[in-house]
Amino acid sequence: MNTQILFRSRPAGEPHESNFRRVQHGIPTPLKGEILCRTIWLSLDPYMRPRMNETATYTDPVDFGQVMVGATVGQVVESHVDGFAAGDFVLGFGGWQSYWLTDGSDLRKLDPALAPISTALGVLGMPGLTAYVTVMDIAAVKSGETAVVSAAAGAVGSAAGQIAKIRGCRVVGLAGSDEKCRWVTGELGFDACINYKTSKDLDAALAKAAPDGIDAYVENVGGPVGEAAMRNLKVGGRVALVGLISQYNERKQHHGLDISPLLWKRATLRGMIVRDHVKRTPDFLRDASGWLREGKLKYRETIVDGLDNAPHALLGLFHGENIGKMLVQVAPDPSRSC
Amino acid sequence: MNTQILFRSRPAGEPHESNFRRVQHGIPTPLKGEILCRTIWLSLDPYMRPRMNETATYTDPVDFGQVMVGATVGQVVESHVDGFAAGDFVLGFGGWQSYWLTDGSDLRKLDPALAPISTALGVLGMPGLTAYVTVMDIAAVKSGETAVVSAAAGAVGSAAGQIAKIRGCRVVGLAGSDEKCRWVTGELGFDACINYKTSKDLDAALAKAAPDGIDAYVENVGGPVGEAAMRNLKVGGRVALVGLISQYNERKQHHGLDISPLLWKRATLRGMIVRDHVKRTPDFLRDASGWLREGKLKYRETIVDGLDNAPHALLGLFHGENIGKMLVQVAPDPSRSC
Repeated sequence: MNTQILFRSRPAGEPHESNFRRVQHGIPTPLKGEILCRTIWLSLDPYMRPRMNETATYTDPVDFGQVMVGATVGQVVESHVDGFAAGDFVLGFGGWQSYWLTDGSDLRKLDPALAPISTALGVLGMPGLTAYVTVMDIAAVKSGETAVVSAAAGAVGSAAGQIAKIRGCRVVGLAGSDEKCRWVTGELGFDACINYKTSKDLDAALAKAAPDGIDAYVENVGGPVGEAAMRNLKVGGRVALVGLISQYNERKQHHGLDISPLLWKRATLRGMIVRDHVKRTPDFLRDASGWLREGKLKYRETIVDGLDNAPHALLGLFHGENIGKMLVQVAPDPSRSC
Repeated sequence: MNTQILFRSRPAGEPHESNFRRVQHGIPTPLKGEILCRTIWLSLDPYMRPRMNETATYTDPVDFGQVMVGATVGQVVESHVDGFAAGDFVLGFGGWQSYWLTDGSDLRKLDPALAPISTALGVLGMPGLTAYVTVMDIAAVKSGETAVVSAAAGAVGSAAGQIAKIRGCRVVGLAGSDEKCRWVTGELGFDACINYKTSKDLDAALAKAAPDGIDAYVENVGGPVGEAAMRNLKVGGRVALVGLISQYNERKQHHGLDISPLLWKRATLRGMIVRDHVKRTPDFLRDASGWLREGKLKYRETIVDGLDNAPHALLGLFHGENIGKMLVQVAPDPSRSC
C-alpha cells in the first residue's frame, strides 16, 4: 500500500497532527514515461511551515487535500524512462508518501559509494547548498572576518559555520542547548557558541565572543536572537537573511524585528531563497564533497522513524528537537550496510 | 544676550519641553582663530530624537547640560579667521542657540544670490544630500522602475521622490495627510500618493499605485507603513533604509518590522547615514542647483518662529506637522528682501 500524508487544514500557530490526514491507496503502476520510486528518506525543513499559510511566500501555498510537499531520497522500483532503472537511488521531490510517481525530470541519481544517500537531503543537498551560497555569495565572507550563525546546530547553520571556518573566519554559533553548543564547538570547530536560551545577556555574550563586532551574520531565526546579533554588527556589516524560524508559527506577525541597528550600522541585509541559486550546485557538490572527504565538513542527522511520525517531527523542528538534519526514515535504507 | 537651549533630560517616549532648559548668557567675544556667528535658521531633523537616547546610534548621545545639537545657517558677526568676514552668510553646526563660536573649520560660505540661504539646511543641505545619495547610490534607481517613498512630504522624502522622477521612475509617495498628498502629486510631480492615515487597506492601495510591484523603496518611517511597502516589493527589490521616524519615540523598541517579505522577495536592504557620503556633496550641489533652476526640484519650508519654540516644534516633526523642511527662524534673515 502507498501511505500518504495529506495537507488537511492551515495551522493557526504551531502545526498540529490534526492539520494532516493519513490515507492509504494501492501502489500506483507506472505507465510509459513514468518512474515509480519507493521513499526511503523524507526531509523535514523549516520552509514547510510558511507554505502551509494562506499567503504566498516565495511560491504558492500548499493546496488542501494534496500530498504534503517535501524532498525525498528513494529507490526506483520500476522505470519506463531511459536512464533510470530499478534499484537506482534517487533524489526527488516525492512529498510525504511511501511511493511516488515521476517523469524523472526532477530526479538526480545518487551513488551510495560516494556518500550516504541521506546526505542528498542534508549536507550535500538543499540545506548544504543554502549554506554554501549564503557564506560564499550572499554574506561573501573574507578571511579574518567574524561570522555569526544562528540555528548553528541546524542543517543549514552547522554547514554554514563550517564553511565560514574553511574560508578563514572566526565563527560564533547561536544555538538552543548546551549539547548543541558542545557539538558545534567540539566537533565542528566553531570558535564559540552561545546558548541563547540560557544566556542572561545575549548582547554581552556576543560582544565577548565577537569582540571586534560581527562582519557577517547568517540569520536563520529572527526574533530577539536576530536583534541581538544586529546590534553587534560592525559598521558596514552584512546580514544574510536565510530564515526566520522563530516567527513562522506566530499567529499574527506583529512581533517583528527592530531593524534600527541596520540603519545605525549602515548594514546590508539580503534575503536568499536557495531555488534562485541552483546554478551553483556543481561548484557546491565539488567543494562540499571534497571537504567531507577531508573531514573539514561534518554533519549529523536526527532520524524519526516512520512516515506516521512526520507531522509530530515537523513540530519538533520548531522546538529545536533536532541536532543537524531532521529526517524521517520512511523505509529501510538498503544502501546502508549496517 | 545669547539664548541657549540645553539638553536637560532623556525623554521617555516623546520629547517634551521639560527635556530642555533655556538659559541666557552674554554674547561671547571671539578670540584669535575664532568666528562669532549669529544664528538665523536652525534645522530640526528626525535624527535629533535618537541622539537624545542613552544608547549610541551612529554616533554618541548628546551630553546633559550641553547646547542641543543642530545644523544652523547664520551670519558672521566678527571674524578672526582668514577667509571669513563680518556679514558673510554661513552654514555651520551651531546648535540651539542664538550665537555660536567656531574656528571656521566646519563652516561653508553661502551665496544668497544663488539660492535662499535657508535651503542650505534643506533641499541644498543635508536632507537634499541624503535624498540624492539614497536615490542615486543606495537605491540606485533606473529609468522605468517604480520607486516608493515614505514620509513623501518631508524634507528628505520630497527631494528623493523628485530625484527619482528625474531619473525616470514611476514614483509613489506615502504621506500622512491629503494636503501633503496633493502637494507631492500636484506640485512635485509624483505619479501617485497614498494617505497612509486614512487608507483602509494600504497593501491594496500600494498594489494599485505600483501594479508591477516596487523596485525601490525609500524607508524613512518604519512600522506598518514600511511593512506594507516591503510586502509589495518585487522579487529582488531594494530598500534604502534612511530613517525609522515612527519608532524613534517608542519607549521599548519591541514593535519591530516583520522582515519576512525581504526573505520571500530576496530583497536587499541597506542602511544609510549621510555623514558617510559627504564626498558626494560637489556632485549633489551641481546637480541639485541645476534642477532647482530648471524647476525640476521644488521645496517647501515649515517655519517656526523663535528659538523658544524649538522644543515644541521638534515634537511637531514627529507628529508630521511639517510640510517640507522644518526650520526654526531664530533671527530675521537679512538676505531675504521681503
